[in-house]
Amino acid sequence: MDLKGAGIGEGISEVIVTTRSASGKPNAAPIGVITHINNENGKAQHFVKLYRKSQTLANVLATTTLAANVTNDAVVFVKAAFENLSEDYFTVFVDMPVLTKANAWIVFTSVAVEESRDYFRFQLTPQAVEIRRKEVKAINRGLNAVIEAAILATRYYLTEDEQEKEEMKRLMERYADIVKKCGGRREKEAMSILHEKFFKGVDF
Amino acid sequence: MDLKGAGIGEGISEVIVTTRSASGKPNAAPIGVITHINNENGKAQHFVKLYRKSQTLANVLATTTLAANVTNDAVVFVKAAFENLSEDYFTVFVDMPVLTKANAWIVFTSVAVEESRDYFRFQLTPQAVEIRRKEVKAINRGLNAVIEAAILATRYYLTEDEQEKEEMKRLMERYADIVKKCGGRREKEAMSILHEKFFKGVDF
Repeated sequence: MDLKGAGIGEGISEVIVTTRSASGKPNAAPIGVITHINNENGKAQHFVKLYRKSQTLANVLATTTLAANVTNDAVVFVKAAFENLSEDYFTVFVDMPVLTKANAWIVFTSVAVEESRDYFRFQLTPQAVEIRRKEVKAINRGLNAVIEAAILATRYYLTEDEQEKEEMKRLMERYADIVKKCGGRREKEAMSILHEKFFKGVDF
Repeated sequence: MDLKGAGIGEGISEVIVTTRSASGKPNAAPIGVITHINNENGKAQHFVKLYRKSQTLANVLATTTLAANVTNDAVVFVKAAFENLSEDYFTVFVDMPVLTKANAWIVFTSVAVEESRDYFRFQLTPQAVEIRRKEVKAINRGLNAVIEAAILATRYYLTEDEQEKEEMKRLMERYADIVKKCGGRREKEAMSILHEKFFKGVDF
C-alpha cells in the first residue's frame, strides 16, 4: 500500500494521530510518522515513537491500532497538542475515530519494536487509506512557525537547563514574529491559542 | 478571480516567481506573494516587494507581468535562489515562462504602488490561472527548514552586524539538524546544494 498519494512521504510527516481507548473514547495528538524508503526496492517502512504517560501510547497498547490524519490546519495541531478535541471534530473510518476535516486518513496496525526509558517505538502497517480532499497550497512560513512553536512549547517544561530555556524563548519570539508577518488567520488564531495555553506562564 | 484554489491564501505565499526580460530571457526567483483579505467583502488583494538590483524587478519594470508558480519542491526553491534555472525547467503559459513541474500557475499584471530605497512594491491583478496538480501532503518540518535556511543564506551577506551573523549561524545549524532528522531526499538534496553554495564560505 503506497502512502505517498495520501501525503505520507519520506522523512517525518507531521500528522494528527487519532486513537481510541479500550472503552471507546477518542483521542487526538500531533505526532510524526517516520517513513524510511528502502534504496534498493523502493519500499516504505513506517514507524512512530510514542512517549510514556501519553494517552496515545495507552490507547495503542490497548488496541494496537491508530489512524494518521493528514491536515495543514494550524489550529487543529495546537488544539490537539494542548487540549482534548471535542467530539464534533471526529467521525468514524473502519471503526477508528478520525478527524472529519482531514485531507486523508490512514489506519495502521502497530507492533512494538523498541521500548526505552522514555518511549515505545512501533512499526506501522497500513490497513486502510482514504483520500478525502486534494488541494494546491503554497508554502506558508507562518504555518510551520506555528508547528515549531507548538513543539517548543511542549518541550519547554521538560527542560531544566536555564540556558536552553532562554534559547527556546528566543526561538519562540522569532516564530511568533514569522506568524505575525506571514500567517493567514488560521495561523494567527493558532498562535493566539498557543499564547493562551503557554506563553502566559513564561516570563518574556 | 479567487486564487485560494490555486494555493494562494491569506498571508504570505512562498512561490517561485517567473518573469521574462525585454529580450525574452526567462528568470525564476523565490518570492513571497502577500495577500490581504478584506474583512468586510472577503475580497483578496495581492502584492509583491521586489528588491532593487534583482533581475525580477528589472523584468517586471520592463514587462509589467509576472507568473507565480506554486510548488513545494525544496530543490527548486534553493536552485532558483542561488543560480539560474536552466531552460528545461520552463514551459510557456499565456506567453509567460512558467515552471513545468509547478502545481499551479498564476499570471499577474503589476502596478507599482510604492518605491523605497531598497524595493518597489507592486499590486498584482491575476489575469490567468491554471491548476496543474492537486495533492495531499503532510507537513514536513524539513521542507520549511530548507526555506528558512535559504532565506537566512540570502540575508547573511547583507548583514554587517557580527552578533546578528552569529545568531544566523546558530539558526542555520538548527535548520540543518531539522532537515537531517525530518526531511525526505528532496529536502536533503536541497540542503546539500545550500551547503555547496553558501555554508562552505562560512566558518562554522
